[in-house]
Amino acid sequence: MPFHYPNGQLFSNHKTTSEKNEKKKPNFANRGMRFEEAINLSNEYYLNYDIAVIHKKPTPLQIVKVDYPKRSAAVIKEAYFRQPSTTDYNGVYNGHYLDFEAKETKNKTSFPFKNFHEHQIIHMERCLKQNGICFVLLWFSSLKRCFFFASEDLIYYWHQQKDGKKSLPLSIIEKKGIEVPTKIAPRIPYLDAVNQYIQQKEL
Amino acid sequence: MPFHYPNGQLFSNHKTTSEKNEKKKPNFANRGMRFEEAINLSNEYYLNYDIAVIHKKPTPLQIVKVDYPKRSAAVIKEAYFRQPSTTDYNGVYNGHYLDFEAKETKNKTSFPFKNFHEHQIIHMERCLKQNGICFVLLWFSSLKRCFFFASEDLIYYWHQQKDGKKSLPLSIIEKKGIEVPTKIAPRIPYLDAVNQYIQQKEL
Repeated sequence: MPFHYPNGQLFSNHKTTSEKNEKKKPNFANRGMRFEEAINLSNEYYLNYDIAVIHKKPTPLQIVKVDYPKRSAAVIKEAYFRQPSTTDYNGVYNGHYLDFEAKETKNKTSFPFKNFHEHQIIHMERCLKQNGICFVLLWFSSLKRCFFFASEDLIYYWHQQKDGKKSLPLSIIEKKGIEVPTKIAPRIPYLDAVNQYIQQKEL
Repeated sequence: MPFHYPNGQLFSNHKTTSEKNEKKKPNFANRGMRFEEAINLSNEYYLNYDIAVIHKKPTPLQIVKVDYPKRSAAVIKEAYFRQPSTTDYNGVYNGHYLDFEAKETKNKTSFPFKNFHEHQIIHMERCLKQNGICFVLLWFSSLKRCFFFASEDLIYYWHQQKDGKKSLPLSIIEKKGIEVPTKIAPRIPYLDAVNQYIQQKEL
């Protein structure tokens, strides 16, 4: 059952029914782990080893009604999902501000643009202006391949939707992005790609 | 009525009864605005003028039960407050990672340490190791004075609690911190203090 915002729009952090079914079969590196969980675990790894401080932002909710039972925790009795105004992940790595979004697709040849919302693109544009390091982590669940893709490039191609393009071809992701081979720990060693990106930028 | 976590601990983002009463009388620069609202407005100002991208993190909640009425928004019917693992605000400013917490007191001569929780101190220590810019904004509501206070200093004094110290004297805040005079827009021009702090660090 998909979540909806009060305006009827589908809640982006949740999967459609067909994608939900997919969750039941192992789809992350044959460990039955979802992509987002693998990223959260990677962030925990980076945190525990003092490598980076990256957190997932909580889902914003509009709280309408709260009960205060005596001698026990406050219970939220009515609340609604709100549209986030940023991407899901941010934090600090070796003096750099990092900001990213993690997305997955079952497609094998391209990544659908519908995974990226305008507010996320606007947020990335703003962070880039402030010299933040912004990117997306793209997971092709059928191919079991993960890519770092810089927001500068994503924004460029995303705007091509006006020309009728509906998705980002894998060939462009392979060419412009940086593949992140999965490991045991951290599961998604995306900071390797970040390092490579920083080096390329400094050239 | 104070919020409690399931473990019975007081929810830190909410005020005690005596502090709640205070909210009813104008206490932010005679405009009847709460400190947090003034910071949020300042962040909006910085965002709209492309000066910095700083957002308040949503309160983390444990969602237990969600209803999905037909043709309308999903309603959360049962959820609980969770202890945040970070500070409230972070973002990017001119290539710098910024991370801070905003706190207020009615005290006139010192800032009680009880406003700062261990998880916030640990988070600040971690961000400092990654060369982030970490600080607290301290609002003395009775004095109508706001200070930028670097986390390096806060952490140093916070650990003195072991020696029985219960609060941070205003005299130290005046000496080690940077006063942020309030304005019309942005209400709390804290980036002025951040600039000064960056300059001092670079010397």
